[in-house]
This record gives sequence, C-alpha cells and structure tokens, in this order.
Amino acid sequence: MTTLNNIGEDALIARLTSLLPRDANPAAGPGDDCAVVDPGPKHPTLQLLKTDAIVGQVHFLKDTPAHSVGWKAAARVISDFAAMGGHPDRFLITLALPAETEVEWVENLYRGIGDCLETFGAVLAGGETTRVPQGSSPVISLAATGSVRREHLVLRSTAKPGQTLLVTGTLGGSDSGKHLNFIPRIKQTDWMVSNYKPAAMMDISDGLAKDLPRLAAASGCGFILDRGAIPCSLGCSEEQALGDGEDYEMLIAMKSEQVADLLQAWGTAFPELPLTVIGRLVELGTGMSLSGGWDHFSRGLFP
Amino acid sequence: MTTLNNIGEDALIARLTSLLPRDANPAAGPGDDCAVVDPGPKHPTLQLLKTDAIVGQVHFLKDTPAHSVGWKAAARVISDFAAMGGHPDRFLITLALPAETEVEWVENLYRGIGDCLETFGAVLAGGETTRVPQGSSPVISLAATGSVRREHLVLRSTAKPGQTLLVTGTLGGSDSGKHLNFIPRIKQTDWMVSNYKPAAMMDISDGLAKDLPRLAAASGCGFILDRGAIPCSLGCSEEQALGDGEDYEMLIAMKSEQVADLLQAWGTAFPELPLTVIGRLVELGTGMSLSGGWDHFSRGLFP
Repeated sequence: MTTLNNIGEDALIARLTSLLPRDANPAAGPGDDCAVVDPGPKHPTLQLLKTDAIVGQVHFLKDTPAHSVGWKAAARVISDFAAMGGHPDRFLITLALPAETEVEWVENLYRGIGDCLETFGAVLAGGETTRVPQGSSPVISLAATGSVRREHLVLRSTAKPGQTLLVTGTLGGSDSGKHLNFIPRIKQTDWMVSNYKPAAMMDISDGLAKDLPRLAAASGCGFILDRGAIPCSLGCSEEQALGDGEDYEMLIAMKSEQVADLLQAWGTAFPELPLTVIGRLVELGTGMSLSGGWDHFSRGLFP
Repeated sequence: MTTLNNIGEDALIARLTSLLPRDANPAAGPGDDCAVVDPGPKHPTLQLLKTDAIVGQVHFLKDTPAHSVGWKAAARVISDFAAMGGHPDRFLITLALPAETEVEWVENLYRGIGDCLETFGAVLAGGETTRVPQGSSPVISLAATGSVRREHLVLRSTAKPGQTLLVTGTLGGSDSGKHLNFIPRIKQTDWMVSNYKPAAMMDISDGLAKDLPRLAAASGCGFILDRGAIPCSLGCSEEQALGDGEDYEMLIAMKSEQVADLLQAWGTAFPELPLTVIGRLVELGTGMSLSGGWDHFSRGLFP
C-alpha cells in the first residue's frame, strides 16, 4: 500500500496530472510556477493562474501572529507570479478553520493578506469559508489570477546547457522569521524581464536542493552547482542553504554572455540585494545530483 | 472572546471583506455565487472566478468513495457557475492531505474530479499539494475560472418585489447520497438564460431556509414562501427540505408574467426535472422570515 509519505510530492503530481483533462495547447506545461492561459494572439497579455495553501503546524504555528500568516499566504502566491515575469491581479481566499477559532485571529489574518495585496497592487475577488473538525489544523488556500506581457513571460523549461545559474538574496535559515515576512522579488523580476530577460526562472520555495534539479529537469538539462558559491544567510551552513526551503528567492538561468553586464547593472539597481552566480547548466545526463530540500509529504518545517 | 461558531458565516464574511482591497468597479458585488471580472466592453464574455473547499468529516466521511468526493468537489463549483448563467473553464486543485493518505485514494479523487470536468467541458490548469498533520482532516480546495456571455449573466442581487420564486428539482435528504453524485443544473440554466432569463438566481447549497433570505436580502426585497408548495424529496419533511442543505438546485426569481410560459416550455424541455413555484418577492421589511439551514461554523453535516 503506497501512501503519500513514501511516494513524495513530485511523483504524486506526475501521477495525478495524467488523470485529468487538460488544455490542448497550454502556454506552459504542468509543473511551472503558474499555469499560463493564452487568450489569443490579439491580446498583449497572458493570464496566469496559481493556487497555494498553508497549513497550521506545517507552515505556521499556533502562536505565529495571524497577520504574518496572512502576509505569508499571499506573498507565496505573488512570488510565483514574479517567477513567471508577471503580476498578481485578483485573489480568491478559501479558509478551512476550526469553529473555535477566534474571529479576531481571522480578522488579523485578513489584514495580513490585505496588506500584501495592497503592497503589490492586487485585489480580493472572492472567497469561501468552511469549518474543519475540532483539533484539525487550519488550512488557508489562496488562488489568484495574474497577468504577464507576452514578451515578458519566463518559464522554467526554457533554459539551455551552457547557461549560467544565479540566485537572488541569501539562502537558508528562513524558519528564523523570513518565511513569514519575506518580500516577493517582483520589483527585481520586473526589472529583469525588461532589461536582462532570464532564459528560465523559478522561485526557490522547497530549497535549492529540490528546486535546482526541478528547473534543470524541466529544461532537459543537467547542472553543476558550485557549492562554495552558494550565498548562505547569516549563521547558516551550506547544508541549511540547500535544504531549509521557504527562501522565496529567484533561481535564474541566464545566457552566459549577458552575466557580466547583468551583475553590474543589478548592483546599481538593487545595491541591497545580492545576485550570485552559483553554477551552470550542462547537457542532460552530465553534471551532478543533489538530494534534500523540502518535500511536502516526507517532512515539514515543524514535524 | 468571539469565535467563529458564535458569529456565524455570513456575519464573518461581512466583517472580513471590508478589510481587503477590492475591485473599484466589480461586475458583481461580494456575496454572489462567483466573482465577475469585466475585461472591457469589447469582450463579449465576462470571466467568472470561484473557489470552494470540502473537508473530511464535514462534507464527506472516511469511507466515502474517493471518486465521489472528487465529483462532489468539482460539481459544487460548476453549480456556482451555472447559477450565474455561465460555464466552467479551468480548474486549480489544492490538496491538503495527511501524509498517511493512500496514493490510490488520491488517484480516485482525481478521477472523480476529472470525470466531472470532462462531463462539463472544463480542464485542469494547475494544482498544489501539501500535507496536514497526522489526524487532521483532509481539505480539498478547488478554484476555477469560468465565463459567461455578457447578456447571459444572472446575479442574485437583481430581483424585484412582485417577482415569482421557483426552484428546480426537489429539496432535502441530500445526505442520503445526492450530496455526492448530484448533477449541476447547467443544462437547465443554459436553456433558461437563452429562453427565459431569470431576474436573479443562485444555487441552494446551504438549504432554502438559509439561501432564500440571502437572495432576497441581496436584492433588497422581502419574501413570502408558500411552505406547502416546497417540492420535498421522497421521504423528506418540509423541515428537511428547508434545512438539510447541499441540494445544489437552482433558486430562481422570475418576472411573474413569464412564469406560465416558462413552466410549459420547461415541461417539454426537461420532463424529468420539476420546476416549482414556491413563493414571491415582496417589498423589503414585509413578508416573512426563516431560520435554520446550514451554517458552516455552527453545525456540519456530520457533527
């Protein structure tokens, strides 16, 4: 009898997506940060669709301030829109909460979501509330529409061998607070798609050890990671930077001839945020492998 | 200290929606079956957005076949699109499941969702999976986009005093099985918006006792319900028909002068499905009141 904790998330998703009817010609395959809907060649923008959920005792704790929980729930989704080169538009909020939840907690949760939506120019379109049985963990699920100019769309499946891998910010240690109050890198991705469009991009939510192999596999590449070059957060080991997860930084594949110019211009545009070369893509079947990172079923932040 | 079970769902939603930024000019107010997005006057169709969730031990039980759980999760959302006069397009599936869930159960859940999507011409666009702690109830949250021709859009807020109230099908007793395998009334709403467009419509998910006052209030009306006219499901009392919930039938407000023609044409188009006059809308502050029906926090199907 196979259960979710011994199949793992990626294998589960691969099995499930084959069971449902799908778009005949999707603008992005399953497995990218967002689904992409092409409304037709006359339209200058594509629609992005994203859903996500955070769970009590998995993504936040009983004593986590509700405002932070709300910010995190919304910021995770916005980070996915950023990873496609796009922006969020309209949110749908689904709350599955124990009936004994305090109304004030829920209001503060909403204020946190609201502050994040306002900061990034999104609005609430609708929602649904339902109860979970007493003692069950609360689940906060956010779905959203977004948009991206056709020429700005960045997928994770379009990198090529020989391209350079970079990450924004520093990695690791997010559970000391960053996982709750992080700023989605949308200002930076906006700037990049207009000035140095990445060959491929994704946000690092499950740890570089999990997400770098995903980007490489989606692009049909292998990879070489310069472990010593990984920008570790203060006080974090290389192991933590690889495996902690919830970094919400951007993993970028860039044509190598553009990298020197990019790094210089970045330093002027975003002097406070590092952008670091961490390796390169190579032919499929060559390079190295990585293990670790966050798997939603085999472990959690707060096991 | 106010908790969700002593504030109730409608009051909670009213408090929450005031906390978030919203569309400056929404095509439908908060509180309708779906959110409506107007892409601009050149477009013949409006976009509909909907999110919903079903929860283990609340909306289904441990021994409910997973295929039925999946069908129900999708059909509930499609019923909401039908209630606006529209159709479903793309679904996002969020699964929050205990790690000890069997993969086969999840596959059958997906098959149930897939059968429903295929039946009603919708596709999967994306999804997300996460775990809940051991012992927590599974939460299946579906969000979807849909569309409606501009001239077919039906809101719940546009009825007027003097109009006639009708319901499709029979009410009550859904927990004996119908809540799992119901057919969203989209064939019927399709036909209605083309032939006898309702003045207002919504689907009955929380019981007529809860949903009729909602439609009347949204339209700024009172109502008179002819309790003896309520079409009760076989073996159900009037009380059950009013309060069981999960009927997924349509509650319709219709201009009274159209009703005789509508009933005759309906009988030819849908001989197998009753359409029944159950009352009328009156001026706000007159008419009657109703209590009961399903409140997501004060009680559940399986308390």
